[in-house]
Amino acid sequence: MSKFSTAAKRLLVGRPFRSDRLAHTLLPKRIALPVFASDAMSSVAYAPEEIFLMLSVAGLSAYAFAPWIGVVVVLVMLTVVASYRQNVRAYPSGGGDYEVATVNLGKQAGLTVASALLVDYVLTVAVSIASAAANIGSAIPFVATHKVEFSVVAIIVLTAINLRGIRESGAAFAVPTYAFMAGIMLMIAFGLFRGLVLGDDMPAESANLQINAEHGDLAGLALVFLVLRAFSSGCAALTGVEAISNGVPAFRKPKSKNAATTLLLMGVIAVVMLMGLIVLAQLTGVRIAEDPATQLVNAPPGYEQKTMVAQVAEAVFSGFPAGFFFITAVTALILVLAANTAFNGFPVLGSILAQDRYLPRQLHTRGDRLAFSNGIVGLAGFAVVLVIAFDAEVTRLIQLYIVGVFVSFTMSQTGMIRHWNRHLATETDPAERRRMRRSQAINAFGLAMTGSVLVVVLITKFLLGAWIAIAAMAVIYLLMTGIRKHYDRVADELARAESESSFVLPSRIHTIVLVSKLHLPTRRALAYARATRPDVLEAITVNVDDVDTKRLVAEWDKENFSVPLKVVESPYREITKPVLEYVRRVRSDNPRDVVTVFIPEYVVGRWWEQVLHNQSALRLKGRLLFQPGVMVTSVPWQLESSEKVAERDLVAPGAIRRGLTGKDPMKDARK
Amino acid sequence: MSKFSTAAKRLLVGRPFRSDRLAHTLLPKRIALPVFASDAMSSVAYAPEEIFLMLSVAGLSAYAFAPWIGVVVVLVMLTVVASYRQNVRAYPSGGGDYEVATVNLGKQAGLTVASALLVDYVLTVAVSIASAAANIGSAIPFVATHKVEFSVVAIIVLTAINLRGIRESGAAFAVPTYAFMAGIMLMIAFGLFRGLVLGDDMPAESANLQINAEHGDLAGLALVFLVLRAFSSGCAALTGVEAISNGVPAFRKPKSKNAATTLLLMGVIAVVMLMGLIVLAQLTGVRIAEDPATQLVNAPPGYEQKTMVAQVAEAVFSGFPAGFFFITAVTALILVLAANTAFNGFPVLGSILAQDRYLPRQLHTRGDRLAFSNGIVGLAGFAVVLVIAFDAEVTRLIQLYIVGVFVSFTMSQTGMIRHWNRHLATETDPAERRRMRRSQAINAFGLAMTGSVLVVVLITKFLLGAWIAIAAMAVIYLLMTGIRKHYDRVADELARAESESSFVLPSRIHTIVLVSKLHLPTRRALAYARATRPDVLEAITVNVDDVDTKRLVAEWDKENFSVPLKVVESPYREITKPVLEYVRRVRSDNPRDVVTVFIPEYVVGRWWEQVLHNQSALRLKGRLLFQPGVMVTSVPWQLESSEKVAERDLVAPGAIRRGLTGKDPMKDARK
Repeated sequence: MSKFSTAAKRLLVGRPFRSDRLAHTLLPKRIALPVFASDAMSSVAYAPEEIFLMLSVAGLSAYAFAPWIGVVVVLVMLTVVASYRQNVRAYPSGGGDYEVATVNLGKQAGLTVASALLVDYVLTVAVSIASAAANIGSAIPFVATHKVEFSVVAIIVLTAINLRGIRESGAAFAVPTYAFMAGIMLMIAFGLFRGLVLGDDMPAESANLQINAEHGDLAGLALVFLVLRAFSSGCAALTGVEAISNGVPAFRKPKSKNAATTLLLMGVIAVVMLMGLIVLAQLTGVRIAEDPATQLVNAPPGYEQKTMVAQVAEAVFSGFPAGFFFITAVTALILVLAANTAFNGFPVLGSILAQDRYLPRQLHTRGDRLAFSNGIVGLAGFAVVLVIAFDAEVTRLIQLYIVGVFVSFTMSQTGMIRHWNRHLATETDPAERRRMRRSQAINAFGLAMTGSVLVVVLITKFLLGAWIAIAAMAVIYLLMTGIRKHYDRVADELARAESESSFVLPSRIHTIVLVSKLHLPTRRALAYARATRPDVLEAITVNVDDVDTKRLVAEWDKENFSVPLKVVESPYREITKPVLEYVRRVRSDNPRDVVTVFIPEYVVGRWWEQVLHNQSALRLKGRLLFQPGVMVTSVPWQLESSEKVAERDLVAPGAIRRGLTGKDPMKDARK
Repeated sequence: MSKFSTAAKRLLVGRPFRSDRLAHTLLPKRIALPVFASDAMSSVAYAPEEIFLMLSVAGLSAYAFAPWIGVVVVLVMLTVVASYRQNVRAYPSGGGDYEVATVNLGKQAGLTVASALLVDYVLTVAVSIASAAANIGSAIPFVATHKVEFSVVAIIVLTAINLRGIRESGAAFAVPTYAFMAGIMLMIAFGLFRGLVLGDDMPAESANLQINAEHGDLAGLALVFLVLRAFSSGCAALTGVEAISNGVPAFRKPKSKNAATTLLLMGVIAVVMLMGLIVLAQLTGVRIAEDPATQLVNAPPGYEQKTMVAQVAEAVFSGFPAGFFFITAVTALILVLAANTAFNGFPVLGSILAQDRYLPRQLHTRGDRLAFSNGIVGLAGFAVVLVIAFDAEVTRLIQLYIVGVFVSFTMSQTGMIRHWNRHLATETDPAERRRMRRSQAINAFGLAMTGSVLVVVLITKFLLGAWIAIAAMAVIYLLMTGIRKHYDRVADELARAESESSFVLPSRIHTIVLVSKLHLPTRRALAYARATRPDVLEAITVNVDDVDTKRLVAEWDKENFSVPLKVVESPYREITKPVLEYVRRVRSDNPRDVVTVFIPEYVVGRWWEQVLHNQSALRLKGRLLFQPGVMVTSVPWQLESSEKVAERDLVAPGAIRRGLTGKDPMKDARK
């Protein structure tokens, strides 16, 4: 069982990483861009479509708002990029928004950001994969009718890949990201050239469809609300912009400058693609309805609404289907890559939070990637739940998505303003002060922008699903505070104990060897116990069966051990309580003694053997530890079946030994 | 969690038993009869009915065979009783058939009997409860239409009662058993008086129904087969006869004689009830069909077939419904009591088998009844599965039942013949030899009888369900042999090791304290480790984070411990493997040293705290035990939350301390 599971794990997880090897893979800008920007770029695949889709509720006439909404989104995007360029300069450590908020606004703000980010990682996976499914579905109808199944399988595959090992090469990111960028740019250029220069007519397949408003004609406040809602959805384009701020340490030097440049580059490219797609959508007359079945009255029977990107590509590359297939393929690919970003980010954030004791300690050390694996599996699990719960519908998932991103943006910009205030208070150099003031102004503008968007998002999306994301954030927040409180309480307890008493060596060691039979494991335990030269050494046995006990006592007498064997009566034929009672009595008779209980244990190699041995010993061991002033020593007797396990621990996986061959695994840190 | 489960267990399980108290409740015959005979007597409730039911397949005319089948069953019953009277005299230890078979025929025979008995215990519960449900259903139609639910609930209630504590008083058995015996006897006497002396007409409610043969008229071999099958079902009356042979030690002296007398008494009463019921059934014209819906053509719509006992009672006590209700109530009650017998017997047999190493060792000691509880829950679980799988239909369950009983009878009688042969080989006293020869003859006749019945049962029931019981027996047999083989292999391994090497004291103790932080748990571990005065004492820490490690080394230097701190590098940021490597190296440098690894551990009181602490330590501990020549010492640091658990272990349950007040729990078995 354990053998199989280890083998299975190896197969899935691959060889362990060496932390020193990871540390030396610094990224040039041309690789850093695709590695960190795939998330942000991929948003272009669904953000403009969501703008049209939301506007469709008010009928075709509302489509006229689309370019203007696009412009506002671009404005917000550029502001956020400008703001984050300040962030990466001020906080080059890679802590990102969590660090900025914690340092400047305190723990609670940091935790709020962390909760928002954790929720967002899950949503990034769900939204990206659902959108990838929709894009592939535009080319392959079978996928369109099995979106949920496809998405779940995709998440599982991604999980398996990430369990095997992450970030194997920058090329894996570079090729699809540049292909996507090139493809979309080419399509935009070619489309604009055909439409505006050649004056070609490029009707999308939905160009002739009539869109009916869902609730009749909207006007006044209702229309404003709808436009704001479309804008909120369009702001999905901003998701992932913060990724670079978490990745600064991976850049080549000068890290901050390179990161800032990459950020700007990413912003410009994203903005161009976003606006280009909106313009092309209008040129080709794409119709995207929120509810195609009821809104598109003159659609042919069996009409399946394709994604906007797919429809635009089809129209622009009409007569050249390879272009259409290329665009949908690279779009799907970059979306999968974006989902993968979350698989990298989630466990890293988890380990930072664990270091700050908001998550269980063991997440901090990578320990054969076990903790990281748990994070990856957890992330995938929640994403699968979301995909299934929302039928892999991007539009429905996106309602949950944006709130977290903007909570994090807003908190981070607020933190930056404080940051500059703090520095301005001590800085005297006028040039430096001017630079700081300028940075602060940028962050303040960023705050105003992101804060407003957050309010708009909350108002327009709350009932549509944002409340779920907020509730999840609250739960995570409370959980993390609870964990931290526990660790703090433990630290307090230790500090109190430390101040109350200083350690003196225990006066004597009273060693008790637990005996059930006089066989080799017991003899070994006795020999080891004697070798520790305790002040008192005695053996005890629990009398659960008079005949057995008498035989044991007789054997003991015959052997002439110098160790006395005491018989502890057990009127209820149980083992644990009489031993606990006995130990307690020894302790209370000699309070300054330390009691060591030696327990002989069989070590077996198969899980079912464990059922046949040591059950009483294990139970007893667990309970003994609760008694103060007691140590428990396990003296193992390895049965033959255990040998394979011991070998496997040290030799079989190979990787470690191979990794260690040139190097002494121990080095004395002291003289 | 653990607190709750203990509380819940206490609530269900009640106070622990004292083994010395159990030993002194010897039973007079008048109590022993109901305690051990309820199982056998209760069979009367379904055995005669099953005879009629099987015959119904051939139509009403076949009912004429019923009394003759009854006579043969009585003959078998009396033979078996006579045989077992020899058993209880020869084996008064209470080992029963398992002991007789093991001693005389060897381990394999003993195991076969044990497997058969374990399967039978499960079936006793299922059949008895299903029959109880049918009888109660005859008086309360709601129960008849919800037999499965009723049976499952009844088994759960019985399980809870048995987890609380068994055999609280003989009266609990005596009252219902005597009430049942008195009720049935009275009914038989009154019925025969009315029918034969007064010449009353006492038609049962089904007396006017026409029974159609299921497969047309049967003749020749088919009829013989059917009659044999009806006889097999009737032999269900014999189930439980062997119970007294397991209970001999509980009888007052002279144990064997009293047990033999009780056995005879039980046999006579059972036989009288069986034949009485068959005669009454014929007098009242009861019609029992295998498939009432198709066979009883002129039944009124919605006709629900009542049990034979209920129909007879209704007819005999016509105009006096209290009689009918009394009979069905006491019948149901004794059936539940019979099911309870299995709850007593199953764990006892399990503990005997564990003593012989056919089941996990821990079943041997009662340990706060935990092992017994597992047995009881397992028994109930399997019984529930059977009840659900067979719709709580007695007729379908009984096909599985009889084969096990007769395997056990046959094995036991074969064993007894061998037993007498062995004794005859050495015995010279003619009177004694004559007595032995007579006993042997009785057992031989018993063997002939039970062997023939076993063959008949196998032939007539195999396809109807007996194969399931046989398959279950085979699985249990193989499982038990496997467990025994494992224990034997371990014993062999130890013996080989013992002959190869004699123990010498290890030359030196090399003590390693595992350090992750310099806090109180670590200081305590260091102090304790130093108190054991090892030959080499060193501390090691695994470097998973350079910053943390440097801080630790600096603190360590400041404190001026006399213990060196070694830093073990961990290129893969894990803990277990570097430590294993290090320990292995220490061992190979000094093969005669014993390495003790001291691990500081937090002890916490709540299950979720366990998730937040010690995960790495636990993992490491588990792996270290696989390395030869290594001891692992846990040095616990009890957090405050653990105190309640420690208290609970010793004080809270109360029972033990109360039980122990007058008595010192330790007594020195040595001078």
